[in-house]
Amino acid sequence: MTPQAFASLIDEIRAKRPLIHHITNSVTINDCANVTLSIGAAPVMAEAPEEVEEMVSRADALVLNLGTLTRHQVDSMLKAGRTANICGIPVILDPVGAGATRMRTESARLLIRQIRVSVLKGNAGEIGVLADAGGSVSGVDSRGLDGDALDIGKGYARRTGLTVIISGAKDIVTDGTRSAIVENGHAMMGKLSGTGCMAASLVAAFAAVCPDHVTSSAAALGAFGVAGERAAQRASGPYSFRTALMDEVAGLVPEDVKRHAKVRSV
Amino acid sequence: MTPQAFASLIDEIRAKRPLIHHITNSVTINDCANVTLSIGAAPVMAEAPEEVEEMVSRADALVLNLGTLTRHQVDSMLKAGRTANICGIPVILDPVGAGATRMRTESARLLIRQIRVSVLKGNAGEIGVLADAGGSVSGVDSRGLDGDALDIGKGYARRTGLTVIISGAKDIVTDGTRSAIVENGHAMMGKLSGTGCMAASLVAAFAAVCPDHVTSSAAALGAFGVAGERAAQRASGPYSFRTALMDEVAGLVPEDVKRHAKVRSV
Amino acid sequence: MTPQAFASLIDEIRAKRPLIHHITNSVTINDCANVTLSIGAAPVMAEAPEEVEEMVSRADALVLNLGTLTRHQVDSMLKAGRTANICGIPVILDPVGAGATRMRTESARLLIRQIRVSVLKGNAGEIGVLADAGGSVSGVDSRGLDGDALDIGKGYARRTGLTVIISGAKDIVTDGTRSAIVENGHAMMGKLSGTGCMAASLVAAFAAVCPDHVTSSAAALGAFGVAGERAAQRASGPYSFRTALMDEVAGLVPEDVKRHAKVRSV
Repeated sequence: MTPQAFASLIDEIRAKRPLIHHITNSVTINDCANVTLSIGAAPVMAEAPEEVEEMVSRADALVLNLGTLTRHQVDSMLKAGRTANICGIPVILDPVGAGATRMRTESARLLIRQIRVSVLKGNAGEIGVLADAGGSVSGVDSRGLDGDALDIGKGYARRTGLTVIISGAKDIVTDGTRSAIVENGHAMMGKLSGTGCMAASLVAAFAAVCPDHVTSSAAALGAFGVAGERAAQRASGPYSFRTALMDEVAGLVPEDVKRHAKVRSV
Repeated sequence: MTPQAFASLIDEIRAKRPLIHHITNSVTINDCANVTLSIGAAPVMAEAPEEVEEMVSRADALVLNLGTLTRHQVDSMLKAGRTANICGIPVILDPVGAGATRMRTESARLLIRQIRVSVLKGNAGEIGVLADAGGSVSGVDSRGLDGDALDIGKGYARRTGLTVIISGAKDIVTDGTRSAIVENGHAMMGKLSGTGCMAASLVAAFAAVCPDHVTSSAAALGAFGVAGERAAQRASGPYSFRTALMDEVAGLVPEDVKRHAKVRSV
Repeated sequence: MTPQAFASLIDEIRAKRPLIHHITNSVTINDCANVTLSIGAAPVMAEAPEEVEEMVSRADALVLNLGTLTRHQVDSMLKAGRTANICGIPVILDPVGAGATRMRTESARLLIRQIRVSVLKGNAGEIGVLADAGGSVSGVDSRGLDGDALDIGKGYARRTGLTVIISGAKDIVTDGTRSAIVENGHAMMGKLSGTGCMAASLVAAFAAVCPDHVTSSAAALGAFGVAGERAAQRASGPYSFRTALMDEVAGLVPEDVKRHAKVRSV
């Protein structure tokens, strides 16, 4: 799992233009559509229970994001997720705010039980809650977890069969056996709404072209982090950063990832 | 139908400030509000069945967009559309994703049957599906249609009484008798989510001040395309393009359209 | 109530990072999240009836915005508002479009009756309607009110016990006894969707750290107006203005407010 090996995934996304079906929150839905387009994939957002199965059956990956969850969305997520499993496409779950309310925690657990999730991407608090490892969440922000994040992630991944991403200053990716640390990104990404959701869209786009989800996830996070580092250099605040970030994602070439992605197996 | 003749519609929009009621998707709803403001009209978004009739009764045009359709939205669209018909204001239908799922295709057909739609704006795949002309749609992207787009658009417009826009590198506008080709715009517009929806908002704003909807639609698409061409010159990616595009729409004056709109009758 | 006295509230927000729970419209929800982050507070958006009470019980302020109201949202707003009252956190109500439809007017009145609202922020038309003072609203725009805005606001505030903000070129803040005029801001703010909603988010962030809501509201509006004035100097249209505005909010320091806020007691 080296940047040299996975840098070409960017070109594969642009060649294949995978369709990424999102059932997501209303806050960052536009950011997710645009980052998906920027990396070279095609976004579609659909959540009516009447159409999600048909839509996902033509998609190449499915993103489920709990950011502004409703009971109806949970039903649509279950339908879409089961269809995704039947079709054999990857399912990325972003349990936004798990731990902040029972509804979010229980919905995340329900989805993980009922659907074969490929990649679970959360912050330390969210993953800590779901792994029963003493995570704490305020609103949609992590307040940390008790114990070592890598160990908790590995144990939870092993028990559940998921690939787990714990996002943070250093992102952790693990399937319980193989693990990677991604040390790209910039503090500005935490000052802008939607960067976590955008990361999940990229994880889905990379997963759609690479069945090894530890590698595809590390590649996605490394690529996004490199874009963030570059964007920060010409930003004077969160929105000039946002503009630069999306432009940088669109401009990424494999060479950028090869040179600048800081991904190491652990 | 020459740019010289319709360029003044921009000034009419700014003088009248028509109220454009949208029932639209959650992905690009903010883009639609802002592009409506930028051209000089007033946006309002309302979709509760309890209020759409009252809201649309004070509006000057109605936009119906199927981008993140729900069953409840279809009901509100029918209510709003019927009221718009009674009030005699133009209805613009953007059948986003028709052809991608049965729900979208059937909802678009239902709306066209039950409401007197003024302008139907879709990509080649969407219009091809609705016209039974072998259109193909993936997610919300056109995969093309069988046969000549202009002929299909003209035939469908004649059968239905709609003014039809088929968006693409060259936009087609036709009511079955009179047709125009608009050759403005830039490839960057396809790399940004929401430009199609924004175009529909502009089509509505122009329709609100001009009852000839072939002319008003060509004017709207020409004006938006000119703004896109200018924006592309100072953009380094999709979000710097987005910023420039909205600024250019706000800065458009009739002279820009007179000089740069490439609209020809066919 | 002088800028010297309240300028430090910005530092208090950044030190405390209050959690601002929003139940808001789908048009500007992203703007609200980002402006909340930019001033240094933490946004959370949640509206499912199953979780709003739990979410608001950990929040430091609650924003209720009627911009794309649904019947279900009204129920969630009542639940969240009552919990906010029990917890003693401020509730900010932005009655977007009150006066444009009966549903919005009646929902705003219902919320004011059933919940102890701390700050009601509307344009002259909206407040005029709610105060039975001959207000007129088209879409979400004020068409003005009959009589003197300050007198109407004072009378309504006295009768209801609310702190009332009447937004406009000059913002009025009054609790019926103490009143302030804020003369910051720029005309560009009216050409961008969402600035009114963003102002409400800032009013909530300031209210979360200051129990005197005439002062906290004047501080929020003064700070936002100063950011708007600066942003306008380097904007060439509504979206370059939006970028600059959010960057300026993030960059505000107490000294900016001390020097440039034009707030006077009346």
